[in-house]
Amino acid sequence: MRSLSLIFIYVLIASVSIAQKTDFDKRLKELNIQLFEPAKPIANYVKAVRSGNLLFIAGHGPSKADGTYITGKVGKDLTVEQGYDAARQVGITILSTLKSEIGDLNKVKRIVKVLGMVNCTEGFVDQPKVINGFSDLMVAVFGEKGKHARSAVGMYALPMNISVEVELVVELEN
Amino acid sequence: MRSLSLIFIYVLIASVSIAQKTDFDKRLKELNIQLFEPAKPIANYVKAVRSGNLLFIAGHGPSKADGTYITGKVGKDLTVEQGYDAARQVGITILSTLKSEIGDLNKVKRIVKVLGMVNCTEGFVDQPKVINGFSDLMVAVFGEKGKHARSAVGMYALPMNISVEVELVVELEN
Amino acid sequence: MRSLSLIFIYVLIASVSIAQKTDFDKRLKELNIQLFEPAKPIANYVKAVRSGNLLFIAGHGPSKADGTYITGKVGKDLTVEQGYDAARQVGITILSTLKSEIGDLNKVKRIVKVLGMVNCTEGFVDQPKVINGFSDLMVAVFGEKGKHARSAVGMYALPMNISVEVELVVELEN
Repeated sequence: MRSLSLIFIYVLIASVSIAQKTDFDKRLKELNIQLFEPAKPIANYVKAVRSGNLLFIAGHGPSKADGTYITGKVGKDLTVEQGYDAARQVGITILSTLKSEIGDLNKVKRIVKVLGMVNCTEGFVDQPKVINGFSDLMVAVFGEKGKHARSAVGMYALPMNISVEVELVVELEN
Repeated sequence: MRSLSLIFIYVLIASVSIAQKTDFDKRLKELNIQLFEPAKPIANYVKAVRSGNLLFIAGHGPSKADGTYITGKVGKDLTVEQGYDAARQVGITILSTLKSEIGDLNKVKRIVKVLGMVNCTEGFVDQPKVINGFSDLMVAVFGEKGKHARSAVGMYALPMNISVEVELVVELEN
Repeated sequence: MRSLSLIFIYVLIASVSIAQKTDFDKRLKELNIQLFEPAKPIANYVKAVRSGNLLFIAGHGPSKADGTYITGKVGKDLTVEQGYDAARQVGITILSTLKSEIGDLNKVKRIVKVLGMVNCTEGFVDQPKVINGFSDLMVAVFGEKGKHARSAVGMYALPMNISVEVELVVELEN
């Protein structure tokens, strides 16, 4: 009887443990997100550099699988909603780089710090709503581990007139 | 006699040691700075994330205790002096977040790195004088530990048209 | 015979080892780069702060040895090529600070993360080509260790109207 109880408790703990441990690669499939082969950097730099447990990821734009970018200024060429979609696309691009760099998304311990830059008009004040496109995706994929410190700011000009650029710091498991 | 000398030396060392160890919470009171309950983030992110001994603090604006912000462009709506005051207000906001995150300001080992962003006109060139409002406060509160590496730059647009935004990295004691 | 072989192998290993271990200070001389005494910070901050093995370096502009700066907007006052030269000059300025901070450039383990900010016109889209002036120099001096994650973005206004500003994170040897 006593050993049966122990087995029961063990199974219970294991189930809870499994429930808590989301498989992030599987989560991507559930969200119907397709990663793609990251494009080569357009200049003399690399996509990410690891130092200790921190992975510093270069500024990424809203690349699409076909190699083109979402371009134009939010507040003029793009609405806030279209800006949100562009920021979400930056997120998919960065997840593609992350997957390519660390192999297994389950090595992500925490999305630590995000700098979200919106190519916008001078009077535009809704950068946070735009960068939510990126942040919402991180939380959808990584849950609590996806919640990050963030700045969302308005830029005068970005490379190739891309609409959004994001750089970030990710903490990896040992 | 000899033990008396030893006691004297001991007291001397202890005094110097106390003099060197400033209580940062007490220092705030001496400076007559009132912290306040930080507002909730206005979007899907958190105020700060710790990784190892580094605390990455999200971009903060010049919030006031009543929940409003200092807004407008420095060089047009605000003078350099008013910009300085806005940057100082960002500092008070960030100290409020820091206190709320780590409980005891004496856990601060060093203000490491600051990115100070000034919402300004195109011809404006005095971003360093504006961001000094933030930096001077950090040094007033934390002394040598408050001295940081910094960039002070001019932005095209900031959320809600706030005048100054600062993000930073703080090193904490073990 | 046998000891002769051993000596031969030893010399071979030593040669390969020397070939791999570039002396970065010597490399500067080969590149004919003259460092200079860094100017004092123009406001209440320091040039660099170390936390663990990471050195956070403050935003630097294109200072020249005579204390003046390269100023003006790329896309109007400066061509892309002149912007490239300004970014290279920022690199020399930062190497001067780095040398002054750590004494020996051979302590550099990796240039980790670079934020390159270009003072430019609204329609300007070649920030990556400009910031390559900085990145190319880092790779010329440090080789593989000089390759970094990077963002290159367009700014509305920079202090004293400098053309380029760069801040970075460097990993140091223990």
